[in-house]
Amino acid sequence: MNTVAVVPEFDLRSWSSAHLSAVEASLSAWVVEDAPAGLGGAMRYAVLDGGKRLRPLLVWAASEAVGGNVQAAQRAACAVELIHAYSLVHDDLPCMDNDVLRRGKPTVHVAFGEAQALLAGDALQALAFELLTPVGDEVPADVQAKLCRLLAVAAGQSGMAGGQAIDLASVGIKLTQTQLQRMHQLKTGALLQASVMMGAACGECDDKASEGLKTYGAALGLAFQVVDDILDVTQDAMTLGKTAGKDAANDKPTYVSLMGLSGAQAHAQTLLQHALVALRSTGLSETRALEALADMVVNRNT
Amino acid sequence: MNTVAVVPEFDLRSWSSAHLSAVEASLSAWVVEDAPAGLGGAMRYAVLDGGKRLRPLLVWAASEAVGGNVQAAQRAACAVELIHAYSLVHDDLPCMDNDVLRRGKPTVHVAFGEAQALLAGDALQALAFELLTPVGDEVPADVQAKLCRLLAVAAGQSGMAGGQAIDLASVGIKLTQTQLQRMHQLKTGALLQASVMMGAACGECDDKASEGLKTYGAALGLAFQVVDDILDVTQDAMTLGKTAGKDAANDKPTYVSLMGLSGAQAHAQTLLQHALVALRSTGLSETRALEALADMVVNRNT
Repeated sequence: MNTVAVVPEFDLRSWSSAHLSAVEASLSAWVVEDAPAGLGGAMRYAVLDGGKRLRPLLVWAASEAVGGNVQAAQRAACAVELIHAYSLVHDDLPCMDNDVLRRGKPTVHVAFGEAQALLAGDALQALAFELLTPVGDEVPADVQAKLCRLLAVAAGQSGMAGGQAIDLASVGIKLTQTQLQRMHQLKTGALLQASVMMGAACGECDDKASEGLKTYGAALGLAFQVVDDILDVTQDAMTLGKTAGKDAANDKPTYVSLMGLSGAQAHAQTLLQHALVALRSTGLSETRALEALADMVVNRNT
Repeated sequence: MNTVAVVPEFDLRSWSSAHLSAVEASLSAWVVEDAPAGLGGAMRYAVLDGGKRLRPLLVWAASEAVGGNVQAAQRAACAVELIHAYSLVHDDLPCMDNDVLRRGKPTVHVAFGEAQALLAGDALQALAFELLTPVGDEVPADVQAKLCRLLAVAAGQSGMAGGQAIDLASVGIKLTQTQLQRMHQLKTGALLQASVMMGAACGECDDKASEGLKTYGAALGLAFQVVDDILDVTQDAMTLGKTAGKDAANDKPTYVSLMGLSGAQAHAQTLLQHALVALRSTGLSETRALEALADMVVNRNT
């Protein structure tokens, strides 16, 4: 395979910055404070002022690659982030990972109590689907339905929730690389891939482009997890904004424990190449943001 | 207000029985066993072989009243039941009501562990939206989008999850009847009302019919909770299939603690009358199932 270089002239920082401001403003407007009995406060705490917002950026990059409806893309970007945020809240609960630090802040159940954290997560999942289905004609009904389907499948038992069930069942068990990959494809890969496909669903794209974007999303999703495992052993908690070294402490299998550090690093670069080659195969002309995001995922240090 | 009698000749038992068989078969087909790492088993345990299925029956009754699309109605009936089932799983968790008995069986976290129960609830919520958005043209896209919107709003912070947050915050606090009603409108009323409106969304209905059905759903939703509170003090656990007297034990406010037993019973009958009057105002000709369901909700003994 020939090495595909990331297009150098694209300014990811400016591009991201513009979209992130808009996404933050929309999230703040849509996740309202005045939900009953403190629930709104817990939901906002879980969602606002934190996170890399990789999933919203993937939605926007894919949507722009296919000339997507901008209202649909903004709603999809926020909806997928709500699903991600709810999964972190539930994943941090004492009955799951029992984590106390997330994005440099106390986790939601530490700040608001377990019951409120449970409800905030539940309500964030519902709100994601509410955002995708606005009254009126700003987003065509067929796009609304398609976005809901992509998100529901990626969040549910064949996606994120299923991956977390495998994760739970695999503590202390020696997984093969194939099994590890399957777990991550569901646990984190499905939602990252869905972000790309939801962006694509905001516009028109033919089968070839759709297949290429799907492959890109799958490779990027895996690369994301490989790099997460690498950072878990190479970075400290201060840099990551979350507890470091916790996979090893929990005796969870990782790409690093399976392939060694340099093996995992090489694997991440291979996956980046897969993602870039898949993008080229789409025939889409404006894929620079998608390329730059894949590069950022693999070469990040937090 | 004149007393409106329930149309006597309607055979609710036969009507329900036919729909319930179909709903059970669809739930069993759609909540698959083979979700990863035991998750499917926990989801099926939470959903199958139990419950009165009031919400699916309301969907079907409303859909038939407006000549709705039968595929849409069956999906909506199952989706709303999945949301109800997930809410029970999460509500029973130790950090919420910490309940061990539900529908005469150990609760999901007792049978499968807390983490699996949390994930099963999460996955059931996602699956509800997946059911509402099938690929292909069996359900028109605008109906899919509308069903998702109604369900998301009813399940989220302005509905069920919001009501549960109020419920959490009100343990040991003396609520007024208005505050108690607000809590129940969100906690159980919103999803019952949404069941009716989702049924209506499967077909065509004008504003007058829609308003009447909304009022019917609201009255029925409140009546359901009033009767629940009555049964909590008049029936034993064996009859209810769940822990009896737990509201009083948890020092939770109820209609009975607020209005007395006979006051609550009279209130339930008044709400039944409201529901029946609202149905008459719809101008719809085939509302016998909706009438009979309202009567059943108020005059049930489990």
